[in-house]
Amino acid sequence: MTVPENVEVGVLRWVPPKIQGLVRDLRVRWALEEAGWPYREHVIDGEEPKSTSYRALPPCGQLPAFRCDDVTLFESGAILLYIAERSVALMPAELTWRSEVGKWILRALNSVEPPILMLNILDMLSERPKDNGLKALRDWLVASIESRLDTLVPVMQGKQYVLGRFTAADVLLTTVLRILRDTDLVKCRPALKEYQRRCEARPAFQKALADHMANFAKHAPPRHP
Amino acid sequence: MTVPENVEVGVLRWVPPKIQGLVRDLRVRWALEEAGWPYREHVIDGEEPKSTSYRALPPCGQLPAFRCDDVTLFESGAILLYIAERSVALMPAELTWRSEVGKWILRALNSVEPPILMLNILDMLSERPKDNGLKALRDWLVASIESRLDTLVPVMQGKQYVLGRFTAADVLLTTVLRILRDTDLVKCRPALKEYQRRCEARPAFQKALADHMANFAKHAPPRHP
Repeated sequence: MTVPENVEVGVLRWVPPKIQGLVRDLRVRWALEEAGWPYREHVIDGEEPKSTSYRALPPCGQLPAFRCDDVTLFESGAILLYIAERSVALMPAELTWRSEVGKWILRALNSVEPPILMLNILDMLSERPKDNGLKALRDWLVASIESRLDTLVPVMQGKQYVLGRFTAADVLLTTVLRILRDTDLVKCRPALKEYQRRCEARPAFQKALADHMANFAKHAPPRHP
Repeated sequence: MTVPENVEVGVLRWVPPKIQGLVRDLRVRWALEEAGWPYREHVIDGEEPKSTSYRALPPCGQLPAFRCDDVTLFESGAILLYIAERSVALMPAELTWRSEVGKWILRALNSVEPPILMLNILDMLSERPKDNGLKALRDWLVASIESRLDTLVPVMQGKQYVLGRFTAADVLLTTVLRILRDTDLVKCRPALKEYQRRCEARPAFQKALADHMANFAKHAPPRHP
């Protein structure tokens, strides 16, 4: 498997500090660092969805976007599957690994992330909710998240990574757990906290995070020095 | 590609009428009908997560679960990817199709479905919300859903299915759009309404839905004849 030379990643120009370190291009940068594929950033104005650079993206122009040879992709999960199929750093080449990695990618993105993202949005929209209806919804979300995290704990027991060795599934699970950084939900589960710490200590993650933050620093508007 | 003979699908014994026709085993049943793979239902008591039958499921015992030869899977998206890689009815065998189908599966499950599911849950928890905080959140969810649906409309233009021919991506997109059946959000977008109608008219969908509903009818508790 050769290293492609013309990889482009569409990333947001800037986001508020509250969500820096959580935006999904981090997942793609991390996977590319693990794979050792060089890439070119293609910075997009999120606030200008009608801009020329934005319209150059694939249809349904959500970010991150990805281009490699004649393949254009969106959705961090689909981009990671694509890279993983071409790099043993993210998935062993034996066919049996594909369904294992696939099920954990989907578990991270379709079962674990949705209630976590929604809790984050609820808390951003309302600071801590006080009225009764919001409190009931928040309690429901926290219970959903806790039940999903609780099922992950025994899975991680005695393992370095979710499938034993590091794979693309760990990139997605870790970046989903990161969204809970302002809560105690991961911190109070030592197996998950230690797993997240182990994944984030990888040099490829550290490099990706530094590049992700450097892009936002470079494009910070005047009132956010 | 031979037809496997020992496929098992773990499905919920019963759910309230409000969500019958929406539970995710419908996706797996539909895909299996399209592929022409026979399967055996393995009915699980959702209310008895400690029951023996439930513990026989793969780790993180959410449903639907899937077993085929020595592969056990969870997550409807991962199960559909697995079936699609083995059946041209759900994905052409040429390698280039894999990333196309993958990106639309992830778009359906990680971008379109989460706000739709959350709106559904919000409305179930509170009937139509009246207090201010809930109304702000509901408005935010509806706006998110509308923006995602609006990006789908031009994609569907002039096409029978999202990638031209029918694939696993259509199974997931259609079953995600179905969750909005009690709203006008799909109905007021003719391209999407027509797309959903076309997909749901397929004999494989009709057979899968009939089996899905028959299972719930068979196991209905006494107060739900």
